[in-house]
Amino acid sequence: MSTLPDINTHFAEWYQEIIVKTGIIDSSPTRGCFVIRPYGYAMWELIQRHVDDKIKVLGVENAYFPLLIPKSFLSKEEKHIEGFSPELAVVTHGGGKELEEPLVVRPTSETIIYYMFSRWITSYRDLPLKINQWANVVRWEMRTRPFVRSLEFLWQEGHTAHRTHEEAVEMALAALEMYRSTYEDFLAVPVVTGMKTDSERFAGADRTYTVEGLMHDGKGLQMCTSHVLAHSFPASFDVQYQDADGARKVPYCTSWGFTTRSVGAIIMTHGDQQGLIIPPKVAPIQVIMIPIYKTDEERVLVMDRIKQIYSTLNGAGVRAKIDDREGMTPGAKYFEWEEKGVPVRLELGPKDLQNNSVVLANRVEQEKTKKKSFVAVDQVVEQVQNLLQIIHATLYDRAKARMQAQWHQADKIADFGPIMDAKHGWYQTGWCGAAECEAVVKQYKGTIRCLLEEKKHNSCFACDADSKVDVLVAKAY
Amino acid sequence: MSTLPDINTHFAEWYQEIIVKTGIIDSSPTRGCFVIRPYGYAMWELIQRHVDDKIKVLGVENAYFPLLIPKSFLSKEEKHIEGFSPELAVVTHGGGKELEEPLVVRPTSETIIYYMFSRWITSYRDLPLKINQWANVVRWEMRTRPFVRSLEFLWQEGHTAHRTHEEAVEMALAALEMYRSTYEDFLAVPVVTGMKTDSERFAGADRTYTVEGLMHDGKGLQMCTSHVLAHSFPASFDVQYQDADGARKVPYCTSWGFTTRSVGAIIMTHGDQQGLIIPPKVAPIQVIMIPIYKTDEERVLVMDRIKQIYSTLNGAGVRAKIDDREGMTPGAKYFEWEEKGVPVRLELGPKDLQNNSVVLANRVEQEKTKKKSFVAVDQVVEQVQNLLQIIHATLYDRAKARMQAQWHQADKIADFGPIMDAKHGWYQTGWCGAAECEAVVKQYKGTIRCLLEEKKHNSCFACDADSKVDVLVAKAY
Repeated sequence: MSTLPDINTHFAEWYQEIIVKTGIIDSSPTRGCFVIRPYGYAMWELIQRHVDDKIKVLGVENAYFPLLIPKSFLSKEEKHIEGFSPELAVVTHGGGKELEEPLVVRPTSETIIYYMFSRWITSYRDLPLKINQWANVVRWEMRTRPFVRSLEFLWQEGHTAHRTHEEAVEMALAALEMYRSTYEDFLAVPVVTGMKTDSERFAGADRTYTVEGLMHDGKGLQMCTSHVLAHSFPASFDVQYQDADGARKVPYCTSWGFTTRSVGAIIMTHGDQQGLIIPPKVAPIQVIMIPIYKTDEERVLVMDRIKQIYSTLNGAGVRAKIDDREGMTPGAKYFEWEEKGVPVRLELGPKDLQNNSVVLANRVEQEKTKKKSFVAVDQVVEQVQNLLQIIHATLYDRAKARMQAQWHQADKIADFGPIMDAKHGWYQTGWCGAAECEAVVKQYKGTIRCLLEEKKHNSCFACDADSKVDVLVAKAY
Repeated sequence: MSTLPDINTHFAEWYQEIIVKTGIIDSSPTRGCFVIRPYGYAMWELIQRHVDDKIKVLGVENAYFPLLIPKSFLSKEEKHIEGFSPELAVVTHGGGKELEEPLVVRPTSETIIYYMFSRWITSYRDLPLKINQWANVVRWEMRTRPFVRSLEFLWQEGHTAHRTHEEAVEMALAALEMYRSTYEDFLAVPVVTGMKTDSERFAGADRTYTVEGLMHDGKGLQMCTSHVLAHSFPASFDVQYQDADGARKVPYCTSWGFTTRSVGAIIMTHGDQQGLIIPPKVAPIQVIMIPIYKTDEERVLVMDRIKQIYSTLNGAGVRAKIDDREGMTPGAKYFEWEEKGVPVRLELGPKDLQNNSVVLANRVEQEKTKKKSFVAVDQVVEQVQNLLQIIHATLYDRAKARMQAQWHQADKIADFGPIMDAKHGWYQTGWCGAAECEAVVKQYKGTIRCLLEEKKHNSCFACDADSKVDVLVAKAY
């Protein structure tokens, strides 16, 4: 019945159509920028709340730094400017006059934050300093895709300074673990975590840790990253402190960010031919309630009961909504809410009133016998909460199984290079660590997504040398 | 003991010094922009949460629109561009190239939102459409002051479209009432609400409602505004719908915004010679807990008890913090936290342990006999909550009494024009409604802050005509 493009053969078209049709996002008159509509923004708000709570548990405090940064700041760290200069939006005029020094719209805030750190950090007693900011950033991307890559996006950026390198690594790993858990435990999206290669690192970082996911079409997506910055980076902003021994030292810094890309990742992981499937913990509407009636008399009774159940669900912290639109058949409503990916549907008609029960339908199950269940009214809260948990687990398990089925072992580039484009997925292989060998993968439009801890391959996929580490190769967004 | 500038004679200096010293805000390397530090940002987060909840109760949904707007959009509504063009920051280069059409950094989002409304609104069934956005905006101000006026600030902007003018007015008034209640009931800041004169209206509005406050120095501050837009504004973006009768019509729109200026308003209303006083509902730390001990043995016992009490307070939803810094006297801690404006201080020493009690100190009371009270440990939660309520009420009453004491009645400009600069405050007077008469006030560096409902004056302050309405005149920020 779905009029959507085939999700297996035309995934890009499926994605573009479903996100607009369901009111998640819209294009805008500003090239490469999108409007996040309420149904999409509500997911981002739930994600923000979750991540913000976790950030505070890590002892990090929120602050806010200027959007516009003097252009010269970006140039202070050589690799940073090299990485970001092709992506900058530049304000040259303000208040009707040309500015003496142009301002860039922040592509990320390390530079201005380190400038401030240089004021705030004077003694070892000021460390660790752990700051986070929720903000918009702009990067001048040429090819854009809603949520995945856009000129402007929303994110949090954590920035911390520590006395020792070990402490900084620990912080970057704690952020990585927070992100992994957010994806897996909150968004039901299985991921792989690991370190990036030198060539894929953040501009200015010594180490970049990444969270990588595999989308419905088997292409990789970098979900978020966490960095230990080069020691020279804070130094170039004169961030220094006097240590307990009296010596002047430069702290070790980290930065880590989580963006609105996560909303795209949810959709590209869980959707099916019928439309979106929103994982329960982040679903703006967890239960859509459909009253069924023919006569006015039935309507009064059904609406009365369904409002009672709504109050009960709402009181138990379940995000429910009654679809009481007139002049629309229940079937048309089912179709619309399935497409919008609401995890649970509750139906209530005259028969259910008699039986003192309701029907619950599970968005994930396609088999009719498993899809629907009859539940006594006094069991609704318990059964709905139970069903939401089941749906979370089902979504995670399903995505995990898909990832595992597409996790290929390969010894040599000849084995996977030529087929990567037709047969997406992870290709685990051995690597000697040389940049020239990494470049071979790029010839096939793949990238090393991350280094793995597991070691299964003894020789490098590209040369005859021994492998130092297993890597995950994929075609990626 | 305070080293701060005299709050009564040097209020501007007092403000500048206290907000930096207590870690509320800092200057930045970007002209006219400020860094909101954690202690200040935590207040904004509490305000945001409060306002966001209220906005949702009004049936308004959050969304996000692009930061950068094609420059031509601003020009579509004549008065809007007239009002905003001197204040625009303009992006002329992106990705290393000059742009064909410059983009402006949003000073407000009506233009891009109406463009989107023209896509989303086609039928009367799409109305009302009620959208809110939490965002940063940039206005190229020449003279800046932390929180009060800066190039960039944070706000929420609500934008709604309705079938009738009455409905739009109702919405604008509902937003106004939400703002009034936020100031008075949440931030303990007494305000006056009313309509702006034609010359003080938002650029593009038909009506602007305002919330006005009187700061410690008797100068007025516009706290936030709510507008009914000119009917021509949505029309210039082709926002149209087909009504039930088949006719094509233009909806009536509102916009309303609440900004980080509110943080400044709190500080400028409640502070005293000792420093900040943060109203309890928005205080990041409501109770600062100071352990008092001399020996190590006492330290263990006192810390043990104070942590128990902390857990109890925390569990009851009270935002408490233990100041367990070593090598600092309790007196030095008292001084620091008084300056930071924490409403309640809890002291616990060996004697209190024996008596099974604690000492609570009230930040607002200066009289020693009223300032401190002994409270049994098992009464702490109740007494703290009670004290927080009392402090909220005291702050509100005190500010209200100050406002009333400075609320002067005046008949003619000669009575108040020449003295306004020396004797700040509200001057209530009669006005005929003519712009030429309003201009007379500006010669004395005052403005009509708003129209009042109450009518006490029969003739215009500037001419001999009858007064149409009482107005509130003040020197303002």
